[in-house]
Amino acid sequence: MLHLQSESTTQWLGQVDAHLDEILIDHAHCERKAASTAMNLMDAYTDNRAITREMTVIINEELEHFHMVIEILDERKIVFRRQGSAPYGRKLNSLIRKTEPDRAVDRLLTASLIEARSCERFSLLSGHLKDRDAKLAGFYGSLFESEARHHTTYVRLAEEFASREVVRERLDQLSASEAEIIAAGCDLVRMHS
Amino acid sequence: MLHLQSESTTQWLGQVDAHLDEILIDHAHCERKAASTAMNLMDAYTDNRAITREMTVIINEELEHFHMVIEILDERKIVFRRQGSAPYGRKLNSLIRKTEPDRAVDRLLTASLIEARSCERFSLLSGHLKDRDAKLAGFYGSLFESEARHHTTYVRLAEEFASREVVRERLDQLSASEAEIIAAGCDLVRMHS
Repeated sequence: MLHLQSESTTQWLGQVDAHLDEILIDHAHCERKAASTAMNLMDAYTDNRAITREMTVIINEELEHFHMVIEILDERKIVFRRQGSAPYGRKLNSLIRKTEPDRAVDRLLTASLIEARSCERFSLLSGHLKDRDAKLAGFYGSLFESEARHHTTYVRLAEEFASREVVRERLDQLSASEAEIIAAGCDLVRMHS
Repeated sequence: MLHLQSESTTQWLGQVDAHLDEILIDHAHCERKAASTAMNLMDAYTDNRAITREMTVIINEELEHFHMVIEILDERKIVFRRQGSAPYGRKLNSLIRKTEPDRAVDRLLTASLIEARSCERFSLLSGHLKDRDAKLAGFYGSLFESEARHHTTYVRLAEEFASREVVRERLDQLSASEAEIIAAGCDLVRMHS
């Protein structure tokens, strides 16, 4: 359903255990960046009715999640601050083709894969934390559904710009690259490291 | 209250009468751009709690207005499409200083002035159209309050980055420039032409 070609590793969960604060701060940034990505798509394809309608839903939900994570940070007395970024987003963005309508397809499909990876990791975190931190586990569990829906929405919207077959083929290519990017890992502990 | 240093002219109202379709299409773009500006500010100053809270409110409201204008376009069988932009936004943006915290002050104050001018013009349009097009007049009247509130919010947020006196002095300078930009006019018929 999520079109991912790899599963997150226990190594990543080990990083999470050692640096949960960093993950929570990064999570807040991820939600804001997801809203920002949706806004950029709404700006770029503003005359596409399906895009503007769905991006509005996603923007509102991601901003709501952003504030939910900020509230969790406050409860835990973790100061929300800027962080260095994992190379994940930059590497994925570098795969986006430059000319339309390929560009639209790639922008939507990379957004879909980021949502899919978030979804997979939220699910993993929810299970991993449930005995130790039921509240946080419940929070991650509650986000799973909307992230999965956003993934599906982005894939469906890509079909506004190319046939279903072309979209599926490109999604396979991009998700193979996404799995390689995740496998390469990074020294920073992040939601997509 | 709106810190504007000029009133819109009857010449502009004449342009509106001749090209109401253009104004309505531009209005939809303006609402989306206003949401986008707020998102950019949320990205740039993401560790400022007042900014992220208020930008979220503004983003939600501007997107709601965007869809309201699209609905009006649909009712009137006007196709929403891309348009050339008036130079207003570009000229105002060129006044933004490059180094922080001046940059933050200027970004917030130019946003406040765009909201103020929208507000002034919505009020003018509401009165101008009330005998001929009560529905549209009512719509513009209903937007007045939120645009005025957004103006006030942006001015108040500028005080996160400079003293009240410095903010007021800079607002006077920028609003003088804004009045000059509006007075120069432009050939395109737009909400800010």
